Amino acid sequence: MAQNIYDDPGSFEGYSRLRRSTEGLDGAPEWPALRALLPDLRGLRVVDLGCGFGWFCRWARGQGAAHVVGLDLSERMLARARASTPDAAIAYRRADLEHIDLPGAAFDLAYSSLVLHYVEDAGRLLAGVHRALVPGGRLVLSTEHPIHTAPTSPGWVVDAEGRRTLPVDRYSVEGPRRTDWLAKGVVKHHRTVGTTLTLLIRSGFALDHMEEFCPTAEQIAADPALAEECERPMFLLLAARR
Amino acid sequence: MAQNIYDDPGSFEGYSRLRRSTEGLDGAPEWPALRALLPDLRGLRVVDLGCGFGWFCRWARGQGAAHVVGLDLSERMLARARASTPDAAIAYRRADLEHIDLPGAAFDLAYSSLVLHYVEDAGRLLAGVHRALVPGGRLVLSTEHPIHTAPTSPGWVVDAEGRRTLPVDRYSVEGPRRTDWLAKGVVKHHRTVGTTLTLLIRSGFALDHMEEFCPTAEQIAADPALAEECERPMFLLLAARR
Repeated sequence: MAQNIYDDPGSFEGYSRLRRSTEGLDGAPEWPALRALLPDLRGLRVVDLGCGFGWFCRWARGQGAAHVVGLDLSERMLARARASTPDAAIAYRRADLEHIDLPGAAFDLAYSSLVLHYVEDAGRLLAGVHRALVPGGRLVLSTEHPIHTAPTSPGWVVDAEGRRTLPVDRYSVEGPRRTDWLAKGVVKHHRTVGTTLTLLIRSGFALDHMEEFCPTAEQIAADPALAEECERPMFLLLAARR
Repeated sequence: MAQNIYDDPGSFEGYSRLRRSTEGLDGAPEWPALRALLPDLRGLRVVDLGCGFGWFCRWARGQGAAHVVGLDLSERMLARARASTPDAAIAYRRADLEHIDLPGAAFDLAYSSLVLHYVEDAGRLLAGVHRALVPGGRLVLSTEHPIHTAPTSPGWVVDAEGRRTLPVDRYSVEGPRRTDWLAKGVVKHHRTVGTTLTLLIRSGFALDHMEEFCPTAEQIAADPALAEECERPMFLLLAARR
């Protein structure tokens, strides 16, 4: 089974305090860029892979989605999502994305925010998502950028001139990376951009868009700490079509 | 006009001494990976954007290409290419890839090795290449990876534990980068991977393959200096289809 840090009380509380948890979608700086990749949701059947507290599921319904399925491994996440959602057209289900079997041709849109880097067998998941979409169906996802997952010692280095850099190594050495974030020994699965795109294309997807998230000037003016996101990409945003 | 360092005698001599100049395609470690992206060349009309000494043009003819056009900005390069090529089915022409107008639907394959990062208006060039290909025609290209072009201070840093890293900054700050390589003040145009893929897709191409070149274990065994290529990607390899 995939690692499930969010059913550990400490990790759950840590996650609950993140801006993207307290403020929802608008608390995530990459949300406007990811939202721009979404189709018109009216009447669509949507699946959210790794739905967390269900912010996206509820937003999608607000945009007119016909039916939304939110999947997550964490019972605690799902419990809070259910408690926040008095809407019979949203179903939350427990699912391990490493082993899930999605129904065939059941969705018009698959969405996944910052989950793919926790999945070891991304090829299996993407092939399953492809089968779960109708022809012409869309996949929109974000994942941690491999420049960010690659390094032996993640984090900024400030040199003698005050210049902040990310020291990159092991970029082409794919596989698990253990980091301490919310919980000790969280495992992320490092894959190059090329590998992620190849898995998408081999699954049968046509790539519509790929973007390395960088905040806008307006976002940086409102929150100057975001400027560091321009030094190295932290998130990879993708849109593809069955 | 684009910068033309290779008609400067010093830069030309420096380039002429590189392994990829003296040994041709087999002197370039990324060549086997790039070759694997090429279709069967028999009977194809091929254009090589930035042909240098014409190694690829001659190889393509050896693989059965019907006709090959090699384009380069450097008269010195073209003179040596012509002198090395007693083959009426290969034509070498002077062209500035910033301003070139290729004929419409004239080629089955466009190839370009390590040239795109010298081109400022990559969108204009890729749109022109798309028009120059027949429907179903292929584009195979390599370009310097933006992790490599981004940093303010390019080059390795070795830390106290002997770990070699590439300090990355300014990844999302696109535009010219001046470096001293073969000539002083060589201008490369830094673009994110996302921008390059977006320009391809907007031009009408479907992406078939994207790869960040890493040498094979056999290549590293034969040339241990290549091991550093696994720490950070130096070349981006792309295959797309009109």
